[in-house]
Amino acid sequence: MTKGAPHVVIVGVGFGGLSAARALAGAPVRITLIDRRNHHLFQPLLYQVATAGLSPSEIAQPIRSIVRGQANTSVLLAEVTGVDADARTVLLGDRRIAYDHLMLATGARHAYFGHDEWEAHAPGLKRIEDATEIRRRILTAFEAAESMDDPAARRSLLTFVVVGGGPTGVELAGAIVELARRALAADFRAIDPRQTRVVLVEAGERVLPAFPESLSAAAHRALERLGVEVRLGTPVTDVDADSVRIGGVLIATRTIIWAAGVAASPAARWLGVAGDRSGRIVVAPDLTVPGRPEIFAIGDTASIAGRDGRPLPGVAPVAKQQGRHVAAAIRLRLAGRPAPPFRYRHFGNMATIGRKAAVADFGRIRLSGLPAWLLWGAAHVYFLIGFRNRLAVVLNWLWAYATFQNGSRLITGSTIKNR
Amino acid sequence: MTKGAPHVVIVGVGFGGLSAARALAGAPVRITLIDRRNHHLFQPLLYQVATAGLSPSEIAQPIRSIVRGQANTSVLLAEVTGVDADARTVLLGDRRIAYDHLMLATGARHAYFGHDEWEAHAPGLKRIEDATEIRRRILTAFEAAESMDDPAARRSLLTFVVVGGGPTGVELAGAIVELARRALAADFRAIDPRQTRVVLVEAGERVLPAFPESLSAAAHRALERLGVEVRLGTPVTDVDADSVRIGGVLIATRTIIWAAGVAASPAARWLGVAGDRSGRIVVAPDLTVPGRPEIFAIGDTASIAGRDGRPLPGVAPVAKQQGRHVAAAIRLRLAGRPAPPFRYRHFGNMATIGRKAAVADFGRIRLSGLPAWLLWGAAHVYFLIGFRNRLAVVLNWLWAYATFQNGSRLITGSTIKNR
Repeated sequence: MTKGAPHVVIVGVGFGGLSAARALAGAPVRITLIDRRNHHLFQPLLYQVATAGLSPSEIAQPIRSIVRGQANTSVLLAEVTGVDADARTVLLGDRRIAYDHLMLATGARHAYFGHDEWEAHAPGLKRIEDATEIRRRILTAFEAAESMDDPAARRSLLTFVVVGGGPTGVELAGAIVELARRALAADFRAIDPRQTRVVLVEAGERVLPAFPESLSAAAHRALERLGVEVRLGTPVTDVDADSVRIGGVLIATRTIIWAAGVAASPAARWLGVAGDRSGRIVVAPDLTVPGRPEIFAIGDTASIAGRDGRPLPGVAPVAKQQGRHVAAAIRLRLAGRPAPPFRYRHFGNMATIGRKAAVADFGRIRLSGLPAWLLWGAAHVYFLIGFRNRLAVVLNWLWAYATFQNGSRLITGSTIKNR
Repeated sequence: MTKGAPHVVIVGVGFGGLSAARALAGAPVRITLIDRRNHHLFQPLLYQVATAGLSPSEIAQPIRSIVRGQANTSVLLAEVTGVDADARTVLLGDRRIAYDHLMLATGARHAYFGHDEWEAHAPGLKRIEDATEIRRRILTAFEAAESMDDPAARRSLLTFVVVGGGPTGVELAGAIVELARRALAADFRAIDPRQTRVVLVEAGERVLPAFPESLSAAAHRALERLGVEVRLGTPVTDVDADSVRIGGVLIATRTIIWAAGVAASPAARWLGVAGDRSGRIVVAPDLTVPGRPEIFAIGDTASIAGRDGRPLPGVAPVAKQQGRHVAAAIRLRLAGRPAPPFRYRHFGNMATIGRKAAVADFGRIRLSGLPAWLLWGAAHVYFLIGFRNRLAVVLNWLWAYATFQNGSRLITGSTIKNR
C-alpha cells in the first residue's frame, strides 16, 4: 500500500465505523479513523455500568488496540467541526484532512423535544461519563436517604424515574430495582432499600414498541413482577430538580434518567443537506449522501427505509451491516464496478428485564422469560468477542448472579455534600 | 447491643479506620464510620489504575458491603468539618454527631512545600479520581504527540516526569515506561512510543530512602535497565504547564506527576492541638491525643516514634496495626482495664519496579529482582483478600503479563480539544 492510495476517512468509531474499518483491512486504501474518544464502546451493556454491574473498562476498548494489526489504518483523536464537501476535506478546528471517500458514522444523542433544560436533571445514557454520572446519582440518592429524617424527602430520594420504554429504559428500570432490592438490601441501617420505587414512563401505548405486542405484554408483566411501576400513554410534561410531571401527575423524585428520543449528531448540518425529523441524513439506497457520491452516512447518522417502508431503527446490527456494505462498495468502486443498494437483513431483537427475564423476537420464533434471558446472555458474550474483557464480563455476571452483589458500586467524580 | 451502648465514631475508612472497625465487630459498642467517599481504597495498587493496568473497581470496595454483616456498625457518607472536643461531638456542617470514643483516621494528602500552585500541573495520587485524571493525562499526551508535527513539542509530550523517589514514584515511573514501550508500542503510526522519556526525580541521595542502601541501589539499577532516567540529589525548584525545573536543569514536559511530600489532613486543626512538621497529631504512646483520652489518632493522621526513635512511616501496616490496637484499647477500657502502649511490629517493606523486578526488605532477608517481584505479587493478592475482585485482579495481571497489554486504557472525563 502506497502513500498514493485512496484516502478513506471514517468519522466516528461506533459499531458502524468500526465494522467498515475492519472490512477494509487489506484493501488498497489508506484509512483514517477520527473520533473524539479513544475508545470504542459496547453500548448495549452501558446500562450495566450505570447500575454498577460492570465497570467501564469491561465494555470499552481503545480504538488503537482494535486496529493495531491493520497496517492501512491510522487513528486520530480529534473533534470534527465541519466538512468542506467541495474541497473534499474534513475540518478539525484549524486543521484540515483531505479525503477521497468519507464515511460519516457519528451516532446520536438524546433528544429532549425542545426542552434542553431538562438534561441537567434527567441525563441520558450514551457515553462512559454518562454512565458513571448516573451511577453516582443513583448511589448518592441511597446515601442521602440513609441520613435523611424527613419521610417525604426520604421517599423522594428513594424514587427513581426512567423516561422511555424502549430497550434501554426497560433494562435500566429492571437493573435499578434489582440493585435496590438485592445488592443494597442489607447495606443500610436507617432505610430499607427494598422500599425503593422505580417508575418507568412511556408516552406510547406499550413498552418495547419495536417488538410484537405479545412480547411487549410479556416484558410489561416481567417488569411488574420485579416491582417496576409502568406508566403508559403519558408523556412527560415537566422535569426539574426534584420532580417530574407526567400528564396530570407530579412524582417527587431526585433521580430521573432519560432514555427517550434520539437526535442525530450534526453531520447533516456539516454538509448543508436535509435531515429527517431527528436530524439524520436521508441517504440514497447505496447509503451515499444525495449529490455527493463520495460521502456515505451510516448508522444513527443516516435515515433509510427498510423493506416495509419504515425507517430502519437505530440499533447496532443496522450500523454494522451498513459499515460492511460501504466497505464493500468502496472496494467495488476501486475495481470500477457499481455498488448494489443496501439491504438490511433483520435477524432479531432482544431486550432484557432483570436477571432472569428477557424477550427475544426472531420473526416466527418469539421467546420470553428465562430462555430468552439465556439467549440474551449468550448473544452478548458472543458479541463482546474481540473485547479483551469478555472473560472478566462473564465472571462479573456469574459473580453477580450467584451473590446478588453489584461489584462496581463506586461513587466518583464529586465529593459528597453535607445536607 | 442496645441503643445505650457507648458510641465509637471513626472518621476515615482507610486501612486504619477499617481495621479498627473490623476489630470491634461484636463488641458492646455502636460504631459509626464516617467518610467522604463510599469506598475503601486499596491504595498500594492505585498507581496501576493511573497507568491503565487495573480499573478502579478492582481496587475499591463499597464501605457498606465490607461491614454489611457487622450489626453494631453503620456508615455515614459525609464530610467532617470539625470536632467540638469539649462537647464530644463531631461536626458535619450543620449536623452534629455525639461520640464516646473518637478515632481520627483521616489520612494524608500530598504536600507541595508551599507551592500549592504546582498541584494543577503536577497532580498527586491519593484518590480514584486522581488516578483516572493521571491516566487521562498520560494517554492524552501520546494522542497529542501522534498528531503533532513539531519535533520539540512532540518530545515534550513524550517526556514524563515523576517527582519523588519513594515507592509510589518508583512504581509509577516503572509502570509508565512499560506502558509506553510494551502496551502502546505498536499502536501509533506517526510516533514511536518506545522513544518515551521517563524521568524520576528525587531530592535525596537515593531512591527508596526507607530501604537499606543495597536495595536502593538494586532498585536504581532495575529502573535504569527499564529505561527510566533517575536524577538524584536535585529538588524541584519550579513547575509549570510545560516544564519542570530541577536544580539548574529545565526539562520540557507536558506530564508531571507528584509523588513527594505528605501533608496530614486537618485533624490537628479540628482539635486545636500541635501537629508535627507534616501536620500530623503527635499522639501519646497509647495513640490518644494529649489531654483527650477519648480521642485517638492513627495512621497518617498521627505522629509517633518507633523503637528506633524515628517517627513511624505512613504505610498501610502501621495504620492497620494502630487500628487494631485502638480497638483492643477500647475493649479493655470497657472492661475497666488500662490499655498498653502501641508497639509497631515491622514485618518488611516492598516496592516493585515494572513487571519483573522488585525489592523486599525483611531485616536480615533482603530480596531483589524476580524473587522479590513474585513475593510482591503474592503479598498483594493476599492483602486484596476481602476485595471481591481478587480474582479479576489476578486475571488482569496474568493477561497483562502474557500479552503486554494494558487493558484499562480509557480516556474519560474530558473531550479532546483540537490543537
